[in-house]
Amino acid sequence: MSSQPSKKFQEQLIQMLTHRGFVWGPEPEIYGGLAGFFTYAPLGKRLKNNIENKIREVFIANDYWEVECPIIMPREVWKASGHLEGFTDPLVECSKCKGVFRIDKLIEEKYPDVIVSAFKEKEFLEFVNDAKVKCPTCGSKFLPEIRRHNLMMKTTIGTNIEAYNRPETATTTYLPFKRYYEFFRKKFPFGVFQIGKAFRNEISPRQHIIRCREFTQAEAQLFLTKKLKQDWKQFEKVKKEKLPLWTWYMQDNKSHPQMTMLDDAMSGNLLKNKAYAWTLYVAYKIFTELGIPHEKIRFRQHAPDEKAFYSDDTWDLEVELQSFGWTEMCGISDRTDYDIGNHSKASGTDMTVPDEDNNKIFPQIIEIAFGTDRPTFAILDIFYKPESGVGERNVLKLPKHLAPVQVAIFPLMARDNLDTKAKEVCEILQKDFFAYYDESGSIGKRYARMDEVGTPFCVTIDYDTLEKNDVTIRERDTGKQARVKISELAEKLRKEL
Amino acid sequence: MSSQPSKKFQEQLIQMLTHRGFVWGPEPEIYGGLAGFFTYAPLGKRLKNNIENKIREVFIANDYWEVECPIIMPREVWKASGHLEGFTDPLVECSKCKGVFRIDKLIEEKYPDVIVSAFKEKEFLEFVNDAKVKCPTCGSKFLPEIRRHNLMMKTTIGTNIEAYNRPETATTTYLPFKRYYEFFRKKFPFGVFQIGKAFRNEISPRQHIIRCREFTQAEAQLFLTKKLKQDWKQFEKVKKEKLPLWTWYMQDNKSHPQMTMLDDAMSGNLLKNKAYAWTLYVAYKIFTELGIPHEKIRFRQHAPDEKAFYSDDTWDLEVELQSFGWTEMCGISDRTDYDIGNHSKASGTDMTVPDEDNNKIFPQIIEIAFGTDRPTFAILDIFYKPESGVGERNVLKLPKHLAPVQVAIFPLMARDNLDTKAKEVCEILQKDFFAYYDESGSIGKRYARMDEVGTPFCVTIDYDTLEKNDVTIRERDTGKQARVKISELAEKLRKEL
Repeated sequence: MSSQPSKKFQEQLIQMLTHRGFVWGPEPEIYGGLAGFFTYAPLGKRLKNNIENKIREVFIANDYWEVECPIIMPREVWKASGHLEGFTDPLVECSKCKGVFRIDKLIEEKYPDVIVSAFKEKEFLEFVNDAKVKCPTCGSKFLPEIRRHNLMMKTTIGTNIEAYNRPETATTTYLPFKRYYEFFRKKFPFGVFQIGKAFRNEISPRQHIIRCREFTQAEAQLFLTKKLKQDWKQFEKVKKEKLPLWTWYMQDNKSHPQMTMLDDAMSGNLLKNKAYAWTLYVAYKIFTELGIPHEKIRFRQHAPDEKAFYSDDTWDLEVELQSFGWTEMCGISDRTDYDIGNHSKASGTDMTVPDEDNNKIFPQIIEIAFGTDRPTFAILDIFYKPESGVGERNVLKLPKHLAPVQVAIFPLMARDNLDTKAKEVCEILQKDFFAYYDESGSIGKRYARMDEVGTPFCVTIDYDTLEKNDVTIRERDTGKQARVKISELAEKLRKEL
Repeated sequence: MSSQPSKKFQEQLIQMLTHRGFVWGPEPEIYGGLAGFFTYAPLGKRLKNNIENKIREVFIANDYWEVECPIIMPREVWKASGHLEGFTDPLVECSKCKGVFRIDKLIEEKYPDVIVSAFKEKEFLEFVNDAKVKCPTCGSKFLPEIRRHNLMMKTTIGTNIEAYNRPETATTTYLPFKRYYEFFRKKFPFGVFQIGKAFRNEISPRQHIIRCREFTQAEAQLFLTKKLKQDWKQFEKVKKEKLPLWTWYMQDNKSHPQMTMLDDAMSGNLLKNKAYAWTLYVAYKIFTELGIPHEKIRFRQHAPDEKAFYSDDTWDLEVELQSFGWTEMCGISDRTDYDIGNHSKASGTDMTVPDEDNNKIFPQIIEIAFGTDRPTFAILDIFYKPESGVGERNVLKLPKHLAPVQVAIFPLMARDNLDTKAKEVCEILQKDFFAYYDESGSIGKRYARMDEVGTPFCVTIDYDTLEKNDVTIRERDTGKQARVKISELAEKLRKEL
């Protein structure tokens, strides 16, 4: 099942991202850099914004409301959520060079079929011993000990209040549940989402923006009752839709994911409730609306011994990358009433509400959780098509609606009024589009630059333009050129974009 | 000059913001809350997004490019920037109740005319002594000592790297200067901006979202040469514009701000260079485009002993609030070549570049810096018009382009197909607008709810609608109603919004 990731492509891509102004880092570069921290450069930031706005659009269309909760929360919150005790990575130390590594990642990279997430200390040590896993830096043995490293970044508020940068947005979203309940007029279901920063002190983050210490999470929570989970009206609208489901027993049997109609998934007991099935579809919708091709997406179910103990069911949406093969992008979990129950108890606040039969309950939560950095990388990875050889064109074939620059305007030469005319055209287009003016270098060089940053259209102003008020418009993917009146240019671009 | 802030209005406003779903906190509320941390609730978050998108739009229209740099930076960055030593607040401790307070804020609140930003330890102690400033909690004397409290939140990266959550976006924006320089093809001027989180460990933050420990900054940097500062082409376009300038000697003379044409401000030496004058205008444009009335804005120049030692000139844009009177919203500084020079030296990286005459220089930086939480509060404060008495209407007269909900759709009754029809109309409008369906409570109550959250238009579906396919549309500010065909509704709203 696993495709062959290309190290060579990965290096070429990351070089392009640096060179063309998408991603710089690790930052601060001038001070030597700190692994896992990156800057989104001008073009990368525009792409990331476009991606986040598309995510926002899909959530809103599915009745989730956006909120913005604090990044920093005091110790007691993380104690109640379980992060203080449980949010740790297993580390090993090299007996010789003293290098420290995540043992789960070392095993996963070398043995992609081993699922390590259920490993306890003992299993890690046994595996290291049996498989002779050695230090990747110097090749020596590891010390026979697994250290637990908490991933949260600790700080202090006021003069002495212990607090942490959040490692996810979710916990911070759960806490105002009673406020939501009032805002939504005491009626289930309702959904909220956050797009915001989160922090994890990974011990040795690699893989560029796929694994950062500082990253942007997009997480949505659906609050509902047990009854609504089965009696989920919106399911009717999506039940004929097909998703690429890969259950844990398919994985065990080494069989492939199957495009499965949601209706069949429900009747075949692949999915436990209709609200969860609908939520899977919302996640799928986000990634397909971003433009990720269907065949590069699959839903991988967590095995019973892999998923968190409170989760009723968890599936990961995975995307196939040229750089890294199949890569986890998004998790969809039925978290039951675990979270609100926990925080109610820990805070001493009564967070029960009446269900349909007037029983006091904690709400059920079904969650979509992912970072926006990974889909940003995925889009760049999937659509970057470098060519080699004579007449090579390195084209970033971005979905048009995500392109950082929508249209570029070139005067044939920067003289004879061509530049003035081109600037006029640029100003007209800037009313409706992100238009970029460029007069330096040969036309061929300017085309090549725009191809590599994914600009769908280039417009050239030449001597004929001055007489006839028309321009050449060139399409990125085909290289086709056509002559268009300036007065019709905006309308043409509107149709194409 | 200073207007009378209304404590009563402030309380009424904050109550509305909590009750109607704009801002909740201090968070985490269920754990007792931590001062200075808030949640933007569903309506507040939509408003904040609209405000941030408007800010983004003005920056982009003025050729600034957005970037996103890390929040966390290691110690050496903050040592070089001066924050590690200098970014501190002066604290005093009560001799009796042991309460700790910012002495500069206590003095400013009680003596608004005293400018404390230039005070050193000695001046603070003398002032406390002379004016008999006492503990606001218990009325006792303070201990005769000024403690320096660093505002940065410290954390650890990896197992032992000292790092800090940034207290502003600016420093993180400066660091990739050489990368920008390449991206912009080694040609000055160029501008970049960031909208992102920053953190300050204020000792006792009050004033709701005006002073938070976690907040969103919007900061823009213009990189240029000394020559370009004077020879600034874009100045031509704005030189006839008038700004409400309040120079430091006007402040000294107790005279009022003057609407001053930028051309006159330059010839009268009120402003030192054309690029700076243009930048002031960009800041003004942001706040007026948000919809803040001209008469509620002024630019207050820092006195020579108030501004930072490296700054060539600093003006604050202030806005007059009902809750707090004239309030600092935004600072515009000519930071000279101080920052890049400093980081070049501290990092050992050569950050010089050639100027027009091929001299090696560090670039000049002119900066606009503000938080987005304050304008969000300002908009709510300025446009909230509570009425008291019989038939009272509490209306949030938001600029229409900022309204969280653009249009609400009500069936007269939730029966007789009126609800089905109303949902159909809602779905049509949701294609272009943020439309909200509401069927609960009397029509009057539904209007009142929408008035108070600033929804510009309400559409009611009644029995006539079923026959004639028209609806009643009601305007928030005037309460005027008109009958409109459903087929013409979207077009009408588009015109009005």
